[in-house]
Amino acid sequence: MSGDHYQAEVAIEDGEDDAAQQATGRPRTMTSTAEIDSTITHPGSVRINVKGAFIVDTPEQPGTPANPSGSSGNGYHETKDIRLPNHTAVISHIAVDIGGSLAKLVYFSREAHSTDPGGRLNFQSFETDRIDDCIEFMRHLKDKQLALNGSKPGELCVMATGGGAYKYYDRIRQRLDVDVLREDEMECLIIGLDFFITEIPREVFTYSETDPMHFASPNANIYPYMLVNIGSGVSILKVSGPRTYERVGGTSLGGGTLWGILSLLTPAESFDEMLDMAAHGDNAKVDMLVGDIYGTDYGKIGLKSTTIASSFGKVFRMKREAENEAEDTGGLSNGDDQNRRQEKQNSDQTSSTSSQPQQSQPRPTSSRASELARSRFSSADISRSLLYAISNNIGQISYLQSQVHGLSRIYFGGSFIRGHPQTMNTLSYAIKFWSKGEKQAYFLRHEGYLGSVGAFLKHQPRNWGRRGSFEATR
Amino acid sequence: MSGDHYQAEVAIEDGEDDAAQQATGRPRTMTSTAEIDSTITHPGSVRINVKGAFIVDTPEQPGTPANPSGSSGNGYHETKDIRLPNHTAVISHIAVDIGGSLAKLVYFSREAHSTDPGGRLNFQSFETDRIDDCIEFMRHLKDKQLALNGSKPGELCVMATGGGAYKYYDRIRQRLDVDVLREDEMECLIIGLDFFITEIPREVFTYSETDPMHFASPNANIYPYMLVNIGSGVSILKVSGPRTYERVGGTSLGGGTLWGILSLLTPAESFDEMLDMAAHGDNAKVDMLVGDIYGTDYGKIGLKSTTIASSFGKVFRMKREAENEAEDTGGLSNGDDQNRRQEKQNSDQTSSTSSQPQQSQPRPTSSRASELARSRFSSADISRSLLYAISNNIGQISYLQSQVHGLSRIYFGGSFIRGHPQTMNTLSYAIKFWSKGEKQAYFLRHEGYLGSVGAFLKHQPRNWGRRGSFEATR
Repeated sequence: MSGDHYQAEVAIEDGEDDAAQQATGRPRTMTSTAEIDSTITHPGSVRINVKGAFIVDTPEQPGTPANPSGSSGNGYHETKDIRLPNHTAVISHIAVDIGGSLAKLVYFSREAHSTDPGGRLNFQSFETDRIDDCIEFMRHLKDKQLALNGSKPGELCVMATGGGAYKYYDRIRQRLDVDVLREDEMECLIIGLDFFITEIPREVFTYSETDPMHFASPNANIYPYMLVNIGSGVSILKVSGPRTYERVGGTSLGGGTLWGILSLLTPAESFDEMLDMAAHGDNAKVDMLVGDIYGTDYGKIGLKSTTIASSFGKVFRMKREAENEAEDTGGLSNGDDQNRRQEKQNSDQTSSTSSQPQQSQPRPTSSRASELARSRFSSADISRSLLYAISNNIGQISYLQSQVHGLSRIYFGGSFIRGHPQTMNTLSYAIKFWSKGEKQAYFLRHEGYLGSVGAFLKHQPRNWGRRGSFEATR
Repeated sequence: MSGDHYQAEVAIEDGEDDAAQQATGRPRTMTSTAEIDSTITHPGSVRINVKGAFIVDTPEQPGTPANPSGSSGNGYHETKDIRLPNHTAVISHIAVDIGGSLAKLVYFSREAHSTDPGGRLNFQSFETDRIDDCIEFMRHLKDKQLALNGSKPGELCVMATGGGAYKYYDRIRQRLDVDVLREDEMECLIIGLDFFITEIPREVFTYSETDPMHFASPNANIYPYMLVNIGSGVSILKVSGPRTYERVGGTSLGGGTLWGILSLLTPAESFDEMLDMAAHGDNAKVDMLVGDIYGTDYGKIGLKSTTIASSFGKVFRMKREAENEAEDTGGLSNGDDQNRRQEKQNSDQTSSTSSQPQQSQPRPTSSRASELARSRFSSADISRSLLYAISNNIGQISYLQSQVHGLSRIYFGGSFIRGHPQTMNTLSYAIKFWSKGEKQAYFLRHEGYLGSVGAFLKHQPRNWGRRGSFEATR
């Protein structure tokens, strides 16, 4: 089956990589650029069985797309078309990580009448705003379990983490009539990450433009490392050993900042639309580059003319230019009359289209100026500028924290990244640039599900999910 | 005279502060909150003479206001009303630091027929966009010099630094017909800062809400320290001794980012308007706080419910709510008809008011959605959120750099700060918070003029501007 196919492929690639393994002590696998787009947007479910865990992502046997639901902005509704991988599956338990923007769900399913002790992890996400859709989905899973397995009510258990585990605790318990076990967010993140690093082939990878998805093979010798989890905000954790961790920092400039500001400045309706726009934009039309200030490089301190000196640094100036042009035009003909006509026209609009928000501002002229300014910049350029600014900033803070704490491996997780090449390239480049190549950025295909997988694993017998654990616990 | 008054006051305060001096090894002076608003927006000129240098800022003898011209957005025009402190002054030379957004001018003037070797430094700034106004102002100073002193053309020298020293080099030389000496930007910054720290009383201060302008007395024992210069972008310098420095980092998220984004999102026409708005805003209406996610504190890792988890983190959600409400309204009556009416009305507006920029976007419906979203947030709340985000971020990066380089004194300079209490409070708080009170943030009244003062001093004989230097060089 497709699973065997992938296992074989991994085995072959590991074999080919012997030289690299000897040189670095870490086996690596490589993938072609052609695979990446589909692979990364559909990381697939994870099969866990005695033969080892792997990601199910072949066309013949598609996993549940793990692309967070923000992508087309419809929460539960967009996932309606997605079938559970196996209609005869038995749900044993569900884990959910409810963050500020997204609720990430993981559940385990197993073939009902199979003697194979394996099964698979399924991934699904919802916007936190639509938490009721998420709860409804869990109820649906519970009903399936009751129908197929004849379990008694209450046997299904929900593991919950993230802030929403507290905020929505009562609601989930009442609607589902099940036990809800709350787990610490940071602990779940690192348990989930440990699992992905140590157990799942073709999960962890490094990114570079020439080799965009270079897999790092599962490895048990991983400590110490740093986790940078980028959701609405950013948390930075130092991990010294299994379940030994410390939140050393973070920043409020995260995914929520990008989504928030771009939803005010562009017509984009979802995060993926924003990323699509960013992919086609030119930040140099918005950002002030070193060359814009110097007219050349600032060679003495190693700043190239293309280095971004100030994100959005060209905007204020260009707004002023727009205003001056408007003034100049007014001045050449009868300026005051023109202004009065404009004012009049504006107030006419206000009465006829009172739903237009900008018109209700106390300073219509200035409001028009900021509209005029917005019209000077394309949504694509603005999106790329802000994506660069936020990714670069996270990259720099991560590097500095890794310096302060003496860590050289940095894993980036969270739903901000979404396998977006520019984001990963910027984060990777920032780490490489600041560390002069001494530190390495790692990414994950299930980047958004570290916390929910961690919460899921906390319900298991000790060592569940580790190789050979099925034998040990049967 | 007023100068003596201030010197006396300083002396008295130093005396009163003996206990503090003994405790910390550094004498300190204190000022009342009442003085601060006027003091900080009008730092005044600096008198340099054999009796010691001091800031001239009494009502009887006002200095040239050093408030950068962005304040009311008119560059040279706003400074028309400002008289040179002494009409009989002789201009010896001029220094200018031309950055991405502002050109900062410093010039020395001396009473023409006085036997007193003293004189004063005058401060003036222009928007870099209006560099021609700045050059015109310098020509005006040159003409004065010729008329009063009968100097030969070419005797006036312009010291220039910042990127614009390169970009506008030819233009300044041609228009003024003078020598233009270019000096390295970073070196000028630290020479200027050294001068202010070591020589000027009532210049350097620490900020806290209870003691907003606590002066640190001039002190020669200052190394090593860190300078964080916040202009359009941010440069971070490690200074190990006189003229021994290294640019260790920086961030593109600086003043230009705040000015740029707020000029797109608010009707503010100048930076000072933005700061005024920020002073009255409530960032909790825009930012996602820990309490919004958890419903409570996240005590285990020390995050209070009021901690900002995600800057602008509430915006995306509220935009969605606005859209849903719009949809719901449509759905209750005849939704499709309503939408079509709305569409029709919109296209009518487009034809009658073609100057409206948002209408030219290919997706009028989404455009309206982002307008609708903008209308949900007040300019004041948005301004405060972004000011916090950028100040906090600079504070955190500064702290991390100071950790990596083992520095405990951090000076904040550059035209971003402008003596704005919230900005200084955020920067101070960030340093105190992250360093657990072990590091100290310092501010300066002439914060925006470090580079131009440094360039000015580079033209002087060795040690000029240091105590006793007039005697030594006469």
